Order: sequence, then structure tokens, then C-alpha cells
Amino acid sequence: MNLADFKVGVDNVIFSVDSQEHRLLVLLVKREENPFINQWSLPGTLVRKGESLEASAQRILAEKIRVNNLYLEQLYTFGGPHRDPRESPDSFGVRYLSVSYFALVRFEEAQLLSNNNHKTTWHIVQEVPQLGFDHNEILAYGYQRLRNKLEYSPIAFEILPELFTLNDLYQVYSTILGENFADYSNFRSRLLKLGFLIDTEKKVSRGAGRPASLYRFDAEAFAPFKDKPFVFV
Amino acid sequence: MNLADFKVGVDNVIFSVDSQEHRLLVLLVKREENPFINQWSLPGTLVRKGESLEASAQRILAEKIRVNNLYLEQLYTFGGPHRDPRESPDSFGVRYLSVSYFALVRFEEAQLLSNNNHKTTWHIVQEVPQLGFDHNEILAYGYQRLRNKLEYSPIAFEILPELFTLNDLYQVYSTILGENFADYSNFRSRLLKLGFLIDTEKKVSRGAGRPASLYRFDAEAFAPFKDKPFVFV
Repeated sequence: MNLADFKVGVDNVIFSVDSQEHRLLVLLVKREENPFINQWSLPGTLVRKGESLEASAQRILAEKIRVNNLYLEQLYTFGGPHRDPRESPDSFGVRYLSVSYFALVRFEEAQLLSNNNHKTTWHIVQEVPQLGFDHNEILAYGYQRLRNKLEYSPIAFEILPELFTLNDLYQVYSTILGENFADYSNFRSRLLKLGFLIDTEKKVSRGAGRPASLYRFDAEAFAPFKDKPFVFV
Repeated sequence: MNLADFKVGVDNVIFSVDSQEHRLLVLLVKREENPFINQWSLPGTLVRKGESLEASAQRILAEKIRVNNLYLEQLYTFGGPHRDPRESPDSFGVRYLSVSYFALVRFEEAQLLSNNNHKTTWHIVQEVPQLGFDHNEILAYGYQRLRNKLEYSPIAFEILPELFTLNDLYQVYSTILGENFADYSNFRSRLLKLGFLIDTEKKVSRGAGRPASLYRFDAEAFAPFKDKPFVFV
């Protein structure tokens, strides 16, 4: 039989935004076994008998991080030969396929379960070192997905508190998309025009300036936009 | 070892638009072996030793259909236990994972290679029967992806001739999205405003009405929109 035999891995690209420090972070773990021992990698595992892909991804994350309502979205499947050094050199032994998952979690709420010496930590996305396997490629794919989703989905509101200022929202966007993605006043007026940000009439004072209005996200008013970019139809 | 062992399949959701008959079609094959013998299914195969996922998907399609520049996009990976009857009943034997791929091909140009009695044919998407495996679910997922892509990517232009009328374009959209997605005059004015349809100053006469203008798609003018829905930033 010339069919390939596979083990299937799941690898998770978990992003978070540290708004205070204006940094986009990704969760990495230090590998404790070969291959790539002592190198950083995405938190992943191999799928067990009777286990679904999603359950496998949730299982490994439950060992690394505690966070409310972790919603994982499937990212991409990397399955070419030669992507894992555990394959025999002629690549005619068992192959390792990776189904990757993606999430954006609230930084303040995410609790790292690093029982031993910072083996699980947040890293600044732009400063990630060489990772084990093809995980730099998987991370780059996840980063692109995150940027795209920010532009047409309400993903940013999942990591903001229920009431937020427009500047809080701008901080999330500019941290992920970079400083030059839009200036604040354009961002503000475009968003308000779309009608899914509700002014709660409450104000908050921070620092010296005028008190800022607190908004909430109205999921119902967003519904017509949901997963429907409608750029040109 | 309690890791699951997998065979990996690839399944292709190949769509086409028959503009003459105003029908959205999907390519199906009649299975010639168990499981699901004599039932329709998506054209798929199992990945061979040393073969990449994409190469495997292209290999099976090359046996079924001849078409220029078949660009396959990865759709989703279905890998839960119990999705394939070849698994042993306790699901602790070999599992079957499916990586699905997606394409939209030009109907007039696609040549079916059905060597034996219509075992490979186009089916109207809305009238697809019960398929083998979980292929109805995979098809539904692909159909949703197609509808989404139509709204923010230039995929429609891949199946139109180089020069086309705005009505030709509208036929593609309304065949895929349904009659009620937009009326023709709104569709026309929104698209022309975006600036990536170039009036070639050529005309074509069809039937009784006035000659219609022929347009071409300007990929460069579309570039700022590419994969950037920019709905609200």
C-alpha cells in the first residue's frame, strides 16, 4: 500500500494585546523534548485516539493558559512531506500533519499556567525568535488572518471590556495593524457612522484631558455586516 | 502509545457557473468502491507517501477534469472521529481526516474526463443528493466560502472572458448569490464607482436591445481592495 501514514498535530496561534504597553503578543512554549528541545514553539500536541481536532487543541491549551470562553478558529493545515524531522529522511515513514488554530484572548484575564520557570510566556510578535518546526510560517499565517479579521469582523470587541472609549478601541487596532493604519479622527468618524457603537452617555476621566465618552458594542446593529464585507456588491 | 493513526484524504469542491442556464454547478463523482459504493461524492483521494496535500488534490482532479490554471484554495480540515465508516466501530483504529480544497472554474473550458458512463458530472448545487461521507457538510462549507469570496475578491473575473458586459458579470453574481442579492442598476453603479472595471469602448450586440459596452477587469486598480474588505477601518 503506498498510502502515507500520518500522526496529526494541532498547533495554536494565541494572540493577545497588552494595551498598556501597546504590544501585540503571541503565546509560546519552550519545548522540553526532541525535536527542537529548548526551542520556542507554538503550544501544540498530537491528536489522541478518539479525540477530535478541536478537543485536542483545547486540551493542550488548558495546560498552558486559563482564559474565559476560549473560542478557537481553524486556521490552516500544513501537511507537506519534510515538515517534521521525526519523519524518516526518505519521508516514506510516518508523516506529521499540523492543523492550526487561532484565537485572540483578553490579556488582563489570561492566566499563564507555567508551573516551571517560564516555559510558557507571551512574546512580542515582531520579535519572535526562530521557532521549532515550521511554526514561524504558521505564526505569519495567523498574524495575517488576525489583521484581516480586524477589518471585517467584531473580533476587537471580544478583548475590550463591555464599556470602552473610542481611544481604547483605537489602541487595539493600531497595536495590531501598526501606527499608520489610519489616523484617530478618521477611524473615529468612520466607526461612528456605521452605527454599531452605542454612546452610553457615561464618561470616564483619565489623565489630564476632558472626560471621554464610554461606548458599548451593539452586536445586533453589527449583524448586517457580519462576515459580509460587501465591498463591491 | 495512545496517539491516533491517520490516513489523510483530500476532497475537492469544484464549482462552475453555467451562465446560459443560470445554474451554479458542483463536480461530483460516482463512487466505484466501498464505502458508499454507487453514491455521489466530492472528487477526492488519499494522500500517498511523499506527496503533498496540494499535489494529491491536483492528482485526483487531473483524472476527472481538464481545465486551465486550476487554482485550488484550502477550505477546511474535517478530522473528528466517526466521520468515515472505514474506522473501526470503537474508533480506536486508523482514522480518516479530510483536508478540503476549493476552486471556481470556467464552465465552457472545463472538459470532463469521464471515461465510463458519466461517473463524473456537474450537479446543480441546490439539487445535490445525499453524498457519501460528510461531503454534504463539506460542500455547504465550500458554498459559503464561495459566496463570501464573491463579495470581497475578484474571483468572478477568473471565470469571465477577458472582455465582458456588466450584465455578464451580474449573471455570475446572481447565479451564485441568488436573484435577490442586489438589483442590476445598484450593482452596476456600485461597481463602476470602484474604478477597477475599464470601459474598453468596444460594444457587443446581443438580441434586440442596444449594443452593450464591453469592460475588462483591471487587477492593478483592484489591488488596494485585495483581501482587504475595509468595511469599517
